[in-house]
Amino acid sequence: MTTNNTAFADLMAWQRQTEALNFVAERLGWDQETMMPRGAAEQRGEEMAAMEGILHARRTDPRIGDWLEAAEAPDAAGAAALRLIARSYNRSCKVPADLAQELARVTSTAQGIWAEARARDDVAGFLPTLAEVVNLRRREAECLAAGGDLYDALMDDYEPGATAATIGAMFGRMRPRLVALREAVLGAARQPAALSGSFAAETQLRMARDLATAFGYDWSRGRIDIAVHPFSSGGWNDSRITTRVVETEPFNCFYSTIHEVGHSSYELGIDPDHALTPLGRGVSMGVHESQSRIYENQMGRGRAFTGWMFGEMRQRFGEFGITDADAFYGAVNRVQPGFIRTEADEVHYNLHIMMRFDLERALIRGDLQVKGLEAAWNDRFKADFGVAVDRPAHGMLQDVHWSVGLFGYFPTYTLGNVYAGCLWKALRAAVPDLEAGLARGDASAPTGWLRENLQRHGGLRPPAETIENACGFAPDEGPLLDYLEAKFGELYAL
Amino acid sequence: MTTNNTAFADLMAWQRQTEALNFVAERLGWDQETMMPRGAAEQRGEEMAAMEGILHARRTDPRIGDWLEAAEAPDAAGAAALRLIARSYNRSCKVPADLAQELARVTSTAQGIWAEARARDDVAGFLPTLAEVVNLRRREAECLAAGGDLYDALMDDYEPGATAATIGAMFGRMRPRLVALREAVLGAARQPAALSGSFAAETQLRMARDLATAFGYDWSRGRIDIAVHPFSSGGWNDSRITTRVVETEPFNCFYSTIHEVGHSSYELGIDPDHALTPLGRGVSMGVHESQSRIYENQMGRGRAFTGWMFGEMRQRFGEFGITDADAFYGAVNRVQPGFIRTEADEVHYNLHIMMRFDLERALIRGDLQVKGLEAAWNDRFKADFGVAVDRPAHGMLQDVHWSVGLFGYFPTYTLGNVYAGCLWKALRAAVPDLEAGLARGDASAPTGWLRENLQRHGGLRPPAETIENACGFAPDEGPLLDYLEAKFGELYAL
Repeated sequence: MTTNNTAFADLMAWQRQTEALNFVAERLGWDQETMMPRGAAEQRGEEMAAMEGILHARRTDPRIGDWLEAAEAPDAAGAAALRLIARSYNRSCKVPADLAQELARVTSTAQGIWAEARARDDVAGFLPTLAEVVNLRRREAECLAAGGDLYDALMDDYEPGATAATIGAMFGRMRPRLVALREAVLGAARQPAALSGSFAAETQLRMARDLATAFGYDWSRGRIDIAVHPFSSGGWNDSRITTRVVETEPFNCFYSTIHEVGHSSYELGIDPDHALTPLGRGVSMGVHESQSRIYENQMGRGRAFTGWMFGEMRQRFGEFGITDADAFYGAVNRVQPGFIRTEADEVHYNLHIMMRFDLERALIRGDLQVKGLEAAWNDRFKADFGVAVDRPAHGMLQDVHWSVGLFGYFPTYTLGNVYAGCLWKALRAAVPDLEAGLARGDASAPTGWLRENLQRHGGLRPPAETIENACGFAPDEGPLLDYLEAKFGELYAL
Repeated sequence: MTTNNTAFADLMAWQRQTEALNFVAERLGWDQETMMPRGAAEQRGEEMAAMEGILHARRTDPRIGDWLEAAEAPDAAGAAALRLIARSYNRSCKVPADLAQELARVTSTAQGIWAEARARDDVAGFLPTLAEVVNLRRREAECLAAGGDLYDALMDDYEPGATAATIGAMFGRMRPRLVALREAVLGAARQPAALSGSFAAETQLRMARDLATAFGYDWSRGRIDIAVHPFSSGGWNDSRITTRVVETEPFNCFYSTIHEVGHSSYELGIDPDHALTPLGRGVSMGVHESQSRIYENQMGRGRAFTGWMFGEMRQRFGEFGITDADAFYGAVNRVQPGFIRTEADEVHYNLHIMMRFDLERALIRGDLQVKGLEAAWNDRFKADFGVAVDRPAHGMLQDVHWSVGLFGYFPTYTLGNVYAGCLWKALRAAVPDLEAGLARGDASAPTGWLRENLQRHGGLRPPAETIENACGFAPDEGPLLDYLEAKFGELYAL
């Protein structure tokens, strides 16, 4: 006879191994983008598919249903764990194992094909693969949606509780204020100078390491490597970051690094008691992005921290054409339409996301075919940003996401910005001498506040509740827009 | 109804995923020794244990028994695959899952404890862990041996078909000729000078890469990194090597590299048709070591190749105190008693193995307790090598093997040397202009012969048959001893 308590213990023991295997699969992904020899792509596809087969079997094991029925949670954390396991179980049971495995295999090799296509601006070489990925994800969404909206079903993987309708409505409220800000800024009389010149790769990387240290990255539980598309990976006691280095674009390297430090700090900041339970990981992509964005933007691109960075850069690179901290702050935050989302300024960034959101919804609905994607992208980009895309690597080939099947993921970036806006408002009220530390290159006070009020809880509460619990108010887009208007209004003397 | 053909196909499909998961587990091991942050050791133990749990369940799945009974092999490769799967199935079924998982967990964390202990010469800090590993492996051996010899049961994991009795008898035949050679060499009037000086780490690493290239290492399917204890890892299209760099010991870096290139070339040289079948990996540790050793010693430390290496070193490092190729050949092959097995010359190397063989047999039999190991090691070392061990890192803490539970593994090193001796004899007869290529730094003729005659077959034949098939004669220790006596007789003018 299974008593309620042993059912709970059995389920958590089972889950413990599943979580460990999730870490293994995630590290394979890290290896693929940082270390793997090029000729191993097909093999890696087989390996990922085998891992996905194992994980899918574990997520859908019928014993989980029995355990869930019998288990009684001993406390709030236990109740949250049961809720998350039930959620995963119910979702996973809807997707046939062969489809899950096929998706793992195809998206693993698709990533290499995307990277090649991007390097050669070869849209035609990528389209058959993209079509296959879209098709597989649509089939998955059909299994999940049970007649409901396909895109919502996919988005739910990344942001439980979010729907295209609520996201679309929020984007609708944000767009006019962002467009108005953008027009005002681009038309302003005062325009900060851009950074120019060349910055040695090795020195950039050393400074990236020191920036990570300034934001409290725990090197005993992480590392930094180079990747085409920077990402962070892993959790508990092993969360690694990546960056990229281009000699003419040191800000790209530095802010990619700080961004990924935000992600990794969230994972590394979760209460170790939650390790190997479903509470042991960041609760959603939107909440994750709130951490990367508040590290990168509100802290990393703020006046106080850029003052310190300016001194550091002068020390490391000598004269580089910018002579005071004010001008440096302007260069870091310079607003201009650009092709690349990850390099976009804070004013344009969410406009990139809104565009991807509409395009990927059309792809998943079937209103847009992959063969029409390049034209649709380029038309929309011209309309939104006023510039014609010059090459596919600056257009529809720029991001890894779609190649690996991440449809419904992009909106979590803007949601993360919105959450970061809320957290910044709360943090500024709670940490009075915030700027003094940042001006010394010491982010321990704000990162400590985030760890205590948000990061350590992991998956204890649903995403929006996680933010509300940290902030003391329900999140909405207001604080982000207020912050942007204040920051760029001051910087551009609007 | 399962027909014979579908049973074979089902079994091979099952095995395909198991092989893919084996690659994943192996790559976790690679990551642990090259990339993993230090603070992740406990987590990695959990991950390895979870993978081992999965793999053990797959290796012992009762369906394998049914499939094996019903399957009919379509060809010789299929028959070999069935034989290897049956072997693994029968062995794995004897070991309880919890013991297999406990072994994976303990040996994973033990490795970090060993590395710390070695760095601090801290025998006492390592003994409790070693005792646990010995105990677990003995328990495993008891499951496997079914009343037979425990050590044989463990050795069978690495060298199917080998027994302590046959190995011991072979060692008994080898020892007098090796000891006589050693005495003659050490007493010889002509003694080559040793290499001295400091060699920049970066330049060593660049040269290591070029040495790997000279031996045909396929960089599109591999990579080189730094590890405490050099090893190679993986197979099919992803087999990676590691090396170590000490500024005063460039030969250590160079020959570790060539050694691991031999291992990786074997894996990468296997017929891709065997990929993801049990034939797709090197057939045994002894055969594996025959490849690493023939690359390292018979080719890499031969007169022809060292002539080329001398020129390369002069070009990269400038003057370094050795002025001609003859003296360089002498320095590379200088015979002297040393503490470290992996740095031992060809005359002493097998004496290190014989000592470990006796000590580890005593540990597994229970005749020697781990608390007595240091004294036993030091006494035996003094007796065999005439020198007192100066610190544990140069004694019983020098090798990773015991910490990760590799008991019964050491004798395969000498077996590999013996096999390399046989292959070298056959290769010299078959490839007449062997020396000319090696003198130009081009090992493609001998490595091509090895690939064609041995490497590509993978697990098609049992280990000794694999060697016999390549050589055209049954292997024994004669050719190795003849080679050593000729080489060192000439070098030391005996």
